[in-house]
Amino acid sequence: MTTDPNCIFCKIIAGEIPANKVFEDGDFIAFLDVKPLSPGHTLVIPKGHYRWVWDVPNAGEYFEVTRKIAQALKKAFVTDFVLSKIIGNEIPHAHIWVYPDVEISGDKLDFTGNAKLIKDNLT
Amino acid sequence: MTTDPNCIFCKIIAGEIPANKVFEDGDFIAFLDVKPLSPGHTLVIPKGHYRWVWDVPNAGEYFEVTRKIAQALKKAFVTDFVLSKIIGNEIPHAHIWVYPDVEISGDKLDFTGNAKLIKDNLT
Repeated sequence: MTTDPNCIFCKIIAGEIPANKVFEDGDFIAFLDVKPLSPGHTLVIPKGHYRWVWDVPNAGEYFEVTRKIAQALKKAFVTDFVLSKIIGNEIPHAHIWVYPDVEISGDKLDFTGNAKLIKDNLT
Repeated sequence: MTTDPNCIFCKIIAGEIPANKVFEDGDFIAFLDVKPLSPGHTLVIPKGHYRWVWDVPNAGEYFEVTRKIAQALKKAFVTDFVLSKIIGNEIPHAHIWVYPDVEISGDKLDFTGNAKLIKDNLT
């Protein structure tokens, strides 16, 4: 698996930088964004260092993981409205944003509580 | 397959409303957005009428199709920067936006030319 020692996301994957992880399997991890747009704003990233989401070879599995997080967010924050954005010009490691509507209630800076809520609602 | 006779996207799928299609298989179609953010702005939708992207059961295949369009956009508009958004509060039929960076050159209202460019670059 390709990694980049200077990449902040690779450092999170390696455990060198702490993050509020909500999901991890062999190929992907998901953790809370430190600058959340809404409570539970999650980043889903491949463990391999790919520049763009479109470079990730197992794209289907990548999106299945994203969908799993989206469904947990729906339950955790009691909303049908869960958004996703793929942009990627800031951090050069593929990432998908997935987050509830900004109008839900909750404290977006309660990272510990929000991570627990998401994990408790993962199926 | 569930359809909704009042849904504009179901009417596009049925061929009752014209659209600039760039891709179609058994479960999904992709066509140009009529209000493009950039040249080649494409909507990828399931043929079944699902309210939200997260409701689509074959999410992996859905994203593989989206990735195929993204890769065609990269080639067609000569950019590495292809974005995607999943919002979905306007039209109640699951849809994924995928479009090149707004700063690329090209005429976003040249639907015929842009559809051809994308189709020519699909692999």
